[in-house]
Amino acid sequence: MRITQTLRRAVQTRADATATICGNREQTWRELRDRVARLAGALHGLGVQAEDRVAILALNSDRYLEYLYGVSWAGAAANPVNIRLAPPEIAYTLEDSESRVLFVDDAFAPVVAQIRAQLPALEHVVFIGDGELPEGCLAYEDLIANHAPAAEAEVRGDALAGLFYTGGTTGKSKGVMLSHDAIVYNMLNMLPMLGYDQTAVYLHAAPMFHLADMANTHAVTAVGGTHCVIPRFDIDALLAMIARGKVTHTMLVPTMINMLVSSGKLEGADIASLRRMLYGASPMPEALLLRAMKALPGVGFVQGYGQTEAAPVVTLLPAEAHYPGSDKLTSAGVPAYGVDVAIMDEAGSEVATGTVGEVCARGLNIMQGYWKRPEQTAETLRDGWLRTGDLGYMDGDGYVFIVDRAKDMIISGGENIFSVEVEGAIYQHPDVQETAVIGLPSEQWGEAVHAVIVLREGGTATEADIIAHCRGLIADYKLPRSISFREEALPLSGAGKILKTELRKELAG
Amino acid sequence: MRITQTLRRAVQTRADATATICGNREQTWRELRDRVARLAGALHGLGVQAEDRVAILALNSDRYLEYLYGVSWAGAAANPVNIRLAPPEIAYTLEDSESRVLFVDDAFAPVVAQIRAQLPALEHVVFIGDGELPEGCLAYEDLIANHAPAAEAEVRGDALAGLFYTGGTTGKSKGVMLSHDAIVYNMLNMLPMLGYDQTAVYLHAAPMFHLADMANTHAVTAVGGTHCVIPRFDIDALLAMIARGKVTHTMLVPTMINMLVSSGKLEGADIASLRRMLYGASPMPEALLLRAMKALPGVGFVQGYGQTEAAPVVTLLPAEAHYPGSDKLTSAGVPAYGVDVAIMDEAGSEVATGTVGEVCARGLNIMQGYWKRPEQTAETLRDGWLRTGDLGYMDGDGYVFIVDRAKDMIISGGENIFSVEVEGAIYQHPDVQETAVIGLPSEQWGEAVHAVIVLREGGTATEADIIAHCRGLIADYKLPRSISFREEALPLSGAGKILKTELRKELAG
Repeated sequence: MRITQTLRRAVQTRADATATICGNREQTWRELRDRVARLAGALHGLGVQAEDRVAILALNSDRYLEYLYGVSWAGAAANPVNIRLAPPEIAYTLEDSESRVLFVDDAFAPVVAQIRAQLPALEHVVFIGDGELPEGCLAYEDLIANHAPAAEAEVRGDALAGLFYTGGTTGKSKGVMLSHDAIVYNMLNMLPMLGYDQTAVYLHAAPMFHLADMANTHAVTAVGGTHCVIPRFDIDALLAMIARGKVTHTMLVPTMINMLVSSGKLEGADIASLRRMLYGASPMPEALLLRAMKALPGVGFVQGYGQTEAAPVVTLLPAEAHYPGSDKLTSAGVPAYGVDVAIMDEAGSEVATGTVGEVCARGLNIMQGYWKRPEQTAETLRDGWLRTGDLGYMDGDGYVFIVDRAKDMIISGGENIFSVEVEGAIYQHPDVQETAVIGLPSEQWGEAVHAVIVLREGGTATEADIIAHCRGLIADYKLPRSISFREEALPLSGAGKILKTELRKELAG
Repeated sequence: MRITQTLRRAVQTRADATATICGNREQTWRELRDRVARLAGALHGLGVQAEDRVAILALNSDRYLEYLYGVSWAGAAANPVNIRLAPPEIAYTLEDSESRVLFVDDAFAPVVAQIRAQLPALEHVVFIGDGELPEGCLAYEDLIANHAPAAEAEVRGDALAGLFYTGGTTGKSKGVMLSHDAIVYNMLNMLPMLGYDQTAVYLHAAPMFHLADMANTHAVTAVGGTHCVIPRFDIDALLAMIARGKVTHTMLVPTMINMLVSSGKLEGADIASLRRMLYGASPMPEALLLRAMKALPGVGFVQGYGQTEAAPVVTLLPAEAHYPGSDKLTSAGVPAYGVDVAIMDEAGSEVATGTVGEVCARGLNIMQGYWKRPEQTAETLRDGWLRTGDLGYMDGDGYVFIVDRAKDMIISGGENIFSVEVEGAIYQHPDVQETAVIGLPSEQWGEAVHAVIVLREGGTATEADIIAHCRGLIADYKLPRSISFREEALPLSGAGKILKTELRKELAG
């Protein structure tokens, strides 16, 4: 199976329906397919061959979608670069992936010269923006206009479809190799519980480079739905596009949902079309989820849990499990129908129901390995299982509860403390806007629980208030021993995950 | 991915829910998994190794399900034998597949001695019936009781999961090799449009050896639903089980649906629980479909079209397309989300929308090939595509309309005549219970259109009546030139397909 099968199906079933809405542009599936085939012809013209990496560094747009399908149509491999990276990190990604071509938009045109200077192997830069053509770049629309449509490349299902660099929340970013089969299989895993069909109108508000959004991309194309695109998460743009496109589905990370429901802008907004809100990519505090469910009463929430290495879905928390009082709200959901999930000890034996171990997954959606990193691949893919690095347990109904990233677990006074649990307690305080709990080195305890907190506007809670609030919600040994308050938002990865590594560095410095 | 992943998931999510209801037996998913693991242990004890074929010849039962999962759990390959075959044909299947073990029930115990005499390579026969143990057979319950549960076999996704012999409607039966990946992928293709979730209660009424039923088997297990089983299609047993099990889904072939809606037994039957009726495996006359929709107003109909070589689903006609006046009722539906479908000419080029060609399919669900028949494999799998041998066209909405099996098309006076179209016209006559249209050798026309008809009880239509009825519904050159009426039902394959080869033989003889 190949990714472009989804595009073929969309054209077969919905040729004249709207495929994309972006800014002042709209196009049908037939038009999109035609542009995709021409783009593939252009890539061949630039010398791109099977499985060659073609990178993109851009905000969201309809052209981002054309890039994704055009690269696949040409038989090449995508390398969607994290837009939050600093130029040296961008250069690292492009160099490590050996990308021969880079697509950039207006937002990233200014860094092109700097990146190119470090990358003699980068042959072409294609400019997909609307502004002035940067020096030395190829004009996207010219490429499309000047090339005949290419035939869909003959691609095996196990061919490399893309390199997806991990967020780097736990060290050096690694290129996850995903095959066409893995990406299509993940799409099939998502469809039954997400309720996509050809009436679906999906809004890309989270960054399109990230698999949390991209997995939806392929599902929406497979059903022949419509893609609405805004350049980046912005509450006004999001609400305006929901109203304009009659958006039915969107995917947001918890921090975005927090901003949305705290914005005061939902009242009076025309969002009656919205049926499903997907969330994931970082832990969802229960208090925030309940607030969001209350603020969006007509919307079915679905959580996706997974990681890049699983293309990305491992478990899904279906809409039916989302109701006040549900004991599954703090869960990551049940295994997707096509994913085999096991909770294992370090030796690779399954642990008993209810016991914490490492969440492991098996299925056609799992990565082929890390690009050029056989040792890390061997550590992560063991005996046919993906070791996710997440600690969790499965309850008697098959719901997986993530207690922490293995690397974020705090060991204090010999006790294991899951940072997520402490954060959940702190989030229940009404003054708290954002928090992250980490372990600080401590002579006495090994590690000491420390909370970093951003208060809501007008919030007045003190360290003593927060600790008093948590007492009774969690065991005493889990209570924060110190708290630092900050004005600015917590540092986020491109996927919206809080960068605890950054916080640890700041507090150490 | 492996088939037993579906069973693992059912135990994880629904351990204490009812897995099977059959006769006076019921069991939970946990109990079923335990029996399956013990059966796998027993198979290992009998010397069964990876990918060894283990056959079954039995009516439907809960033990059929245990067999399917037990064989997979052991890492072996299933060979579910068509129950309509004559003993020499059964022997051929077992010999060709080199099956080392055969499971039989009460219904087939009498033919065991005869089969065994022809098959020195058959090492063991396991008796899964309730009657007296036939001589030389192993008792199923003893095997289960006397073996410890085996660990789930380590099986690669591309390992052979089973040999599924084709119906032989067009020549010698061939063993279709399906991998674990193909069967699981097909399961994922079915889920979104069939509406299975953990509340599903599925009735096995069509024969379990056939993929039309078996594909549902894996879907129902994956969601953790319930399997209700009756030994064979029987209207009283079917209605009684729907009422007893609160059945939500079932799969019937068109001839069964015809019998059901003609039985006069629907009125007063307790079938309010039924949400979905799947149909397929042979063409559905529109008149019959409309009658069935009227007779079962609360039921959503879904058609599956495919073949054993596709594991089996290629296209699905969703419930939403089933309404009186829909122009899709004569269609086989749209491509399943994970199947790439193309209508091709003989040379392998796609034909234009609306043009008749051969229906071709591509995807992870496609067979690995025919067992020990590389030449027929090469004819059928060409350039990565499965050539189905069915003629059809795709309309502008992606709906595929099957016009005929390539081998059932009649060429009369130089014109191509699709037997299915003539049958559709005849079926609209109220006196007609069943019909099959074939070409008879004709000196004048090459072939001449001939209809075989079974009238309803009390039906009085004559040859002239039928031809007059068809005039105006179809072009004159397509009208039957002769008709034979018969009392007994038309000859059916094990899958409920009308055996036109038999009719041709009878009429020639």
